[in-house]
Amino acid sequence: MAAKRIGWIGTGVMGQSMAARLLAGGFDVAVHTRTRDKAQPLLDRGARWLDSVADAAGEDAVVSMVGYPADVEEVLLSERGVIAAIDDGSPCRLIIDMTTSTPSLAVEIAEAAAARGVMALDAPVSGGDVGARDGTLSIMVGGDSAALAAAVPIFDLLGKQALLQGGPGAGQHTKMVNQTLIASAIIGVCEGLLYARRAGLDCEQVLASVAGGAAGSWSLSNLGPRILRGDFDPGFFVEHFVKDMEIALEEARRMELELPGLTLARSLYGEVIRRGGARLGTQALYGAIEAIASGGGDDR
Amino acid sequence: MAAKRIGWIGTGVMGQSMAARLLAGGFDVAVHTRTRDKAQPLLDRGARWLDSVADAAGEDAVVSMVGYPADVEEVLLSERGVIAAIDDGSPCRLIIDMTTSTPSLAVEIAEAAAARGVMALDAPVSGGDVGARDGTLSIMVGGDSAALAAAVPIFDLLGKQALLQGGPGAGQHTKMVNQTLIASAIIGVCEGLLYARRAGLDCEQVLASVAGGAAGSWSLSNLGPRILRGDFDPGFFVEHFVKDMEIALEEARRMELELPGLTLARSLYGEVIRRGGARLGTQALYGAIEAIASGGGDDR
Repeated sequence: MAAKRIGWIGTGVMGQSMAARLLAGGFDVAVHTRTRDKAQPLLDRGARWLDSVADAAGEDAVVSMVGYPADVEEVLLSERGVIAAIDDGSPCRLIIDMTTSTPSLAVEIAEAAAARGVMALDAPVSGGDVGARDGTLSIMVGGDSAALAAAVPIFDLLGKQALLQGGPGAGQHTKMVNQTLIASAIIGVCEGLLYARRAGLDCEQVLASVAGGAAGSWSLSNLGPRILRGDFDPGFFVEHFVKDMEIALEEARRMELELPGLTLARSLYGEVIRRGGARLGTQALYGAIEAIASGGGDDR
Repeated sequence: MAAKRIGWIGTGVMGQSMAARLLAGGFDVAVHTRTRDKAQPLLDRGARWLDSVADAAGEDAVVSMVGYPADVEEVLLSERGVIAAIDDGSPCRLIIDMTTSTPSLAVEIAEAAAARGVMALDAPVSGGDVGARDGTLSIMVGGDSAALAAAVPIFDLLGKQALLQGGPGAGQHTKMVNQTLIASAIIGVCEGLLYARRAGLDCEQVLASVAGGAAGSWSLSNLGPRILRGDFDPGFFVEHFVKDMEIALEEARRMELELPGLTLARSLYGEVIRRGGARLGTQALYGAIEAIASGGGDDR
């Protein structure tokens, strides 16, 4: 039986747009978030309000899209969380955590959910604010195929693809690969543009020469122009990216892997935060690299 | 008056394919290279042989595509080079160096050429062996627009675009931006795939999730699959990439810029060379990062 009533937890930049797509797609959405005001645009479009996360256990499926692993734990695993509120009479059959969080927490959630006879998926996304709005996210799924099958009507509204990457935690691991790729790519974009400026080149013309070839990347085509016009507004917040990189580095340590590029990126973003850029977009790395490159940054 | 007779110097992987395209496009090509045997495929297709680089001064235009800045200097600027051989009676009106070389050498060549009334362009390329064969290179041009206009019939056969980036040396600077972008991108690709493998993920499936989104890049889409099937054959030689990174780092130092990502890449590629990988493709960074990541590399 397909889930019709969705309990949605978390209405940040991403969650807001994603829940709106489910509403527009005909789902009956009930929403909870820490600050009720932030849910108002969804309530205005017909969403119901849930007084607590535990109340989400009364819906057919629950989707969480919150900030940090600690939030995921609180919302899904704690005594006051969704899973603890599920009993034999609860309609909830499926829990989907779409937050970028740790693979080990995803395993814990899957086990706790299974103990109550409920399916669970970790399903972090890439595609940013634009992908969330347009329903073109790439959804990286960990769990089993039965759970994915149950989630397909939801994922169809949110993403251009939802690929099963393995058992619980595999979606989160895949997202860590994604973030590891992005971390070094952005360093290259910032250093390349900085070099171009210092060499006195016309940066737009340089992009025209290099963006379509072997140096091309999403980061260059999308963040490059923003950097050039001095637009450091968030598509994706620095503080969230730092969280992701820390999860990836911690997982790498657990696998006894040292990743020098990711380590460098984490360190450089530390400089962005020291410069007050936690709530800027990830392209704000440019300013930190410029400061460091010119000897004005930390003493690394 | 358009150049019809081209003196072509250098028949490596790139030069060979590019000169062949000029021959096929109707140019009268005369070729010189250090080892005559390597020019044989071009001679078989109708190219004339030049006994010395100086003899290239007898053609309407000269194109050099050699290995290192020292080779460019020898071929174009030395006493036995092309420019020294140009006198009032020489037909040569245009010199194009397509080698990836230093911006300062490009300026020297342009000045020496101008002193003989000859136009010069620095015009390094990106697009690799495939782009050279298919005529889809991106050509990054430094010089003036009159020289570029004279070179258009040549560039039209070699590339999908040839963009003027500024005066002498600006083509080389743009290529350095290109290589700086690639350097960090490849680190990300190697670390991402290494993480994926260690986490026990199906790497092909991971690529399907991440390659089309914000983590996407030419490096990921083109080098990623080669790394996964253990194919480290050269599209672009490690030793040439190291040369390019050293030029970029030297130019950055001259501009008083420290580039931490590029510095890291140069250092990691040093490990590739220590492991005997100078003549492998740039994707061979994977093996070095794997060794370093697992504590088996140098003691950085």
